Amino acid sequence: MFGKRDDLVVHQQEPFNAETGMDSLGDSVTETNAFYVRGHGPVPEIDPDAWRLRVEGMVERELSLSLATLREAFRERTVTATLQCAGNRRSRLMAIRGIPGEAPWGPGATGTAVWSGVALADVLALAGPLVGASDVGFEGADLSPEIEPVQRFGGSIPLDKASRSEVLLAWTMNGKPLAAVHGAPLRVVVPGYIGARSVKWLERIEVRAEPWLGYFQHVAYRLVPADGAPGPGVGVPLGLVALNSEVLSPRDGDTVAAGPTEVRGYAFAGGDRYVARVDVSIDGGASWTQADLLEDLGRWAWRHWRITVDLPPGEHELLVRAWDSSAATQPEDDASLWNPKGYVNNARPRIRIRAGAG
Amino acid sequence: MFGKRDDLVVHQQEPFNAETGMDSLGDSVTETNAFYVRGHGPVPEIDPDAWRLRVEGMVERELSLSLATLREAFRERTVTATLQCAGNRRSRLMAIRGIPGEAPWGPGATGTAVWSGVALADVLALAGPLVGASDVGFEGADLSPEIEPVQRFGGSIPLDKASRSEVLLAWTMNGKPLAAVHGAPLRVVVPGYIGARSVKWLERIEVRAEPWLGYFQHVAYRLVPADGAPGPGVGVPLGLVALNSEVLSPRDGDTVAAGPTEVRGYAFAGGDRYVARVDVSIDGGASWTQADLLEDLGRWAWRHWRITVDLPPGEHELLVRAWDSSAATQPEDDASLWNPKGYVNNARPRIRIRAGAG
Repeated sequence: MFGKRDDLVVHQQEPFNAETGMDSLGDSVTETNAFYVRGHGPVPEIDPDAWRLRVEGMVERELSLSLATLREAFRERTVTATLQCAGNRRSRLMAIRGIPGEAPWGPGATGTAVWSGVALADVLALAGPLVGASDVGFEGADLSPEIEPVQRFGGSIPLDKASRSEVLLAWTMNGKPLAAVHGAPLRVVVPGYIGARSVKWLERIEVRAEPWLGYFQHVAYRLVPADGAPGPGVGVPLGLVALNSEVLSPRDGDTVAAGPTEVRGYAFAGGDRYVARVDVSIDGGASWTQADLLEDLGRWAWRHWRITVDLPPGEHELLVRAWDSSAATQPEDDASLWNPKGYVNNARPRIRIRAGAG
Repeated sequence: MFGKRDDLVVHQQEPFNAETGMDSLGDSVTETNAFYVRGHGPVPEIDPDAWRLRVEGMVERELSLSLATLREAFRERTVTATLQCAGNRRSRLMAIRGIPGEAPWGPGATGTAVWSGVALADVLALAGPLVGASDVGFEGADLSPEIEPVQRFGGSIPLDKASRSEVLLAWTMNGKPLAAVHGAPLRVVVPGYIGARSVKWLERIEVRAEPWLGYFQHVAYRLVPADGAPGPGVGVPLGLVALNSEVLSPRDGDTVAAGPTEVRGYAFAGGDRYVARVDVSIDGGASWTQADLLEDLGRWAWRHWRITVDLPPGEHELLVRAWDSSAATQPEDDASLWNPKGYVNNARPRIRIRAGAG
């Protein structure tokens, strides 16, 4: 599937699940070979010549589109977008209290790529959503053995979002044809939404009058209260990505030379928000200094940040808090965010480092 | 200006600044006479017959519209929307460290009304924004003596937001003609944005290629770091309303009978988010119970909530945390949110009550 798999931290071989390594997380655009993979079943085998995208449900006319037709009938569009799994940074929650059956994703269940394809909105305009339509569902070719009976992976987004030009049906990633593991021949890319809505191996679009009722939206990928249990319709359906951030360098437990030390990381805000500010504290949150925000890849991408702090010799705890464009910041305490599926750990990053005498 | 001003907490008589009283904050739609007022200068005297709305800047055709033309040429639309001042709940920040020159707004710098008028998008479509336009500015008739030389109040929103059907040019509030103090004859209503963008006494719309450079957007209404000072372009420009909540009953310092006690409040999330969940803790945050979300007034309005907690006799601290539809929750600690203008205190509400032996 990959030419090489360096800088991926593999959580599971079959189905393949792996997160972007710490070094690659520092790149503004993530190398395809280091881009995280979240799958719920085996990569399906698809004959691209026989493959068709069906568009059905609440539409004036149903469509069945070949790749050639998609390429010829619609304008090609390109969007630089960060995808982020709802389970990103789960490992911190698992350290507080176990989460059986879920992978201990670190901060690499995310990555940024340049995606090209057609706007979902253009395809929907051709199909003509009917009055009363409110959601657009996506179904992949992949069958997941996580549920009995097995079920195809799927999910939906509001029609309102689906009508925006940034939502793509993509066939290239970073300028190359989409790899099988990333959803070839065609995947959805929904910027600002959890990765689970960017359905891979897309085969069917269903315009609907209600959100998707399949397992991966109606049962999984929901924020269940700490004392609750997952079930159909239980908890808050996840969709928009919450503001989040991570420190990439130095790393928790590192020893650095005392004196000026460069600290780097990423921050990301979903929905209609962008990262507006990142602060770093080396005194447990008593005082904060603003980091520099690095390259701006546009409103659908993460923002890397950098700051030089002056560390006296000794033990230090570094704290980070990002702010989004609603002037909201991250919650302090990851313990209070624990939930039975371990989703949306967006607590302020906290690392311990030791500054040596130099 | 008002028939009666009951249930307004007046911070300043001239210009008139007052917040919605605690009892009225419990109403799903706020009585007009109890709806908070934030003004930066005297209420301007406007002759509605002579009044015209100018639409200019980067447009194909400039417009000058009378009230009669606005009513006749465009479809009337109605939106139930919460407005919230960026200074809402500032008083908690002022208790931590003083904020000279700003009013100590409690949790009543917010209110919800039913607004009617025309969609800004319809007016913009007639004017025809030119290629390169990115922002839509609003200028009121009110002159503010807060700046030297005096300046009209104004601000802007992205063209993207301005093109959405929920943004109104409103002439009625709760079914009655707009009162002078609320911006008659015409005000902007920008659901999901800080109240400062819902410019009152609107006289001029300017389609622009950059955000508003007037004092009230370029200097004031920005989130300045705790150790910084306000200045042109300093800090994060405020726009989208951050997730926030407040307890309305019981009140801080109250004594209640031990046993089952009803707790009520509001929560609000701006932008493209909605309130998804509200939790209450009576044990300092060690455990949380979900409150019931009350009447759903649509995606642009706050959500009231209610829960019955069982209080043993003694002192208690009640904590509340709201969650929005990105599964983000409020930050814990208001001290860490302190900023020189006292904006966006969206820390979790915290009240102390005493349960008597009954």
